[in-house]
Amino acid sequence: METVFTYQSLYNFTYTIFKHIGCNDNDATTATKALLAADFRGIDSHGVARLSGYVRLWEAGRINSAPNVSIKHETPSTAVVDGDAGLGLVVAPHAMQIAIDKAEKVGTGWVSVCNSNHFGIAGYHAMMALKKDMIGIAMTNASALVAPTFSIERMLGTNPIAVAIPAGAEPPFVADFATTTAANGKLEILQRKNAEAPLGWVQDKEGNASTNANELKNGGALLPLGSDREHGSHKGYALGSIVDIFSAVLSGGSYGPWAPPFPAYVPMPENMPGQGLGHFFGAMRIDAFRPAAEFKQHMDNWIQRFRNAKPASGYDKVLIPGDPEREMENIRMKEGIPVVDSVVNDLKMLAEKFQITF
Amino acid sequence: METVFTYQSLYNFTYTIFKHIGCNDNDATTATKALLAADFRGIDSHGVARLSGYVRLWEAGRINSAPNVSIKHETPSTAVVDGDAGLGLVVAPHAMQIAIDKAEKVGTGWVSVCNSNHFGIAGYHAMMALKKDMIGIAMTNASALVAPTFSIERMLGTNPIAVAIPAGAEPPFVADFATTTAANGKLEILQRKNAEAPLGWVQDKEGNASTNANELKNGGALLPLGSDREHGSHKGYALGSIVDIFSAVLSGGSYGPWAPPFPAYVPMPENMPGQGLGHFFGAMRIDAFRPAAEFKQHMDNWIQRFRNAKPASGYDKVLIPGDPEREMENIRMKEGIPVVDSVVNDLKMLAEKFQITF
Repeated sequence: METVFTYQSLYNFTYTIFKHIGCNDNDATTATKALLAADFRGIDSHGVARLSGYVRLWEAGRINSAPNVSIKHETPSTAVVDGDAGLGLVVAPHAMQIAIDKAEKVGTGWVSVCNSNHFGIAGYHAMMALKKDMIGIAMTNASALVAPTFSIERMLGTNPIAVAIPAGAEPPFVADFATTTAANGKLEILQRKNAEAPLGWVQDKEGNASTNANELKNGGALLPLGSDREHGSHKGYALGSIVDIFSAVLSGGSYGPWAPPFPAYVPMPENMPGQGLGHFFGAMRIDAFRPAAEFKQHMDNWIQRFRNAKPASGYDKVLIPGDPEREMENIRMKEGIPVVDSVVNDLKMLAEKFQITF
Repeated sequence: METVFTYQSLYNFTYTIFKHIGCNDNDATTATKALLAADFRGIDSHGVARLSGYVRLWEAGRINSAPNVSIKHETPSTAVVDGDAGLGLVVAPHAMQIAIDKAEKVGTGWVSVCNSNHFGIAGYHAMMALKKDMIGIAMTNASALVAPTFSIERMLGTNPIAVAIPAGAEPPFVADFATTTAANGKLEILQRKNAEAPLGWVQDKEGNASTNANELKNGGALLPLGSDREHGSHKGYALGSIVDIFSAVLSGGSYGPWAPPFPAYVPMPENMPGQGLGHFFGAMRIDAFRPAAEFKQHMDNWIQRFRNAKPASGYDKVLIPGDPEREMENIRMKEGIPVVDSVVNDLKMLAEKFQITF
């Protein structure tokens, strides 16, 4: 069913693959760290499971493995970055660093990125701000799988938002979530198991609620956070739209239903209104608002108070955003990273393709 | 059941009340416009319906009607504002203006506010940015009514987020939503009608799903956007938490379960970790990213494409965030603003209290 790998062995393999598709040392290192952060944190859908997908995009000529990532326009607190069709795993850390550098100087930095590709997990990029005592924000648009409220057409990606907030003695607050009821990765797990999805995750091609985890293959759509109008799906739709606009309309990327697809076999949308996928990054220096030590003390208080909120029966305690992923990191650091057979086979095919050992 | 008033008559009355509690001309004007924007846009729970509530807070000594709103700390792109216990309706436009002024100079402006009170509808403040060709963002914490996922304790307010984005020929995109499945105002409407709430809006004091619209009076809680864990309530909980932290932990306000209550009869929380309610405002100059005309053209394209997404059967078209409120504005501009009897009685009592005509 699955094989357990050490982080280091997956790291070496992934790095070698990125080198083989033409990344320089620096970019291969950056991309490998960003990609494997997903496996490390338990978001298995976004880690090595996608490595062969990135390679196929490169083979299709949709990814430039030696991009010249550049600033198209900037002000003291903002920049628009052109990713030059590079790996999102390389472009995103570059752009986030620009946001952090601007925050150092004027308090905050905000960077909108066009002409990029899938960037892995949003949380990884947002967390770059933590070690600088900054709040980090990361979001991205993605290919359209989600129907707006009252619609049967796929118009938005799962468009995740991540916000990382430093604390003191407590670990940081790290929220990282798709703006849909359920991330597509969760649906994929049910598909593999031939299991039903809870009502409220997907609709069929007519717009009816469905429990068929394969509904997307039949022309159905994922639902915005909230599931239906009565339960606030218009709010999830608004959130996904805000991510799309900040990431792609602000930068000159390709937005809404025109966002480029991740699978290389899916044709590119016609009449794209911009270049590539878009991302949006923010960094806010804590001491641009109040002394960092004071803030962190209050964050510790916030976290402790919430963790100790009265639990509902059957639950031990209330979780703080980031808790499950951090626990997973601790486990996988000791015990290694389990990779399911289908992904292991994928990696073996990559090894064969590039004639490297695995 | 209800009486229809012209905007002007409600304006004159509200202005007079704010003058009577000690606001100067300027502040009374600012507060009246902010408050009535809610009635105008159809968010009846947040307009004149709350006027007597503000007066009671002033009577209880919790609102300072002649505040010295000041900047406690700032950088080129940030500020922390102390609202001096003023009306949120006065403090918020002041703080949003600071964000806009900073955006003029360095591209973006971000203002966290402490020591404030309820600020009306978030959308009104976010929309201040539109006429400057800026994206406006507004959020606020509020007194605790919402239980985090896995909890039975009220820890967060309905903590709304508003994002206003300018367009060209199309009207602007204006999202303004509570980070709960349903806003408390919607529950209040059901309470007045003695109607049941949809499952997923509230839980009882044991944490069980409930359709009792009066559950909050029995120790229950509102649910975060997503309703339950399976449908993403941890995302709504994360969003509400982010609003709380940006608004109150960053500014030195009182956060989480310690946020001050709106009803003056509810005692203030003990051991408050900060001063008053907190807000957070952002302004991003469009041309700090790309030329405004170009952006607006793409926003028009975005809006038209989404409005024309294939509707589900039974629906004419897909709505753009802000559509329902703008339609309501158009109707109420022509036909006046209906006010329900209970609120009319409230206003009559205010008129009597201050010996003014109504």
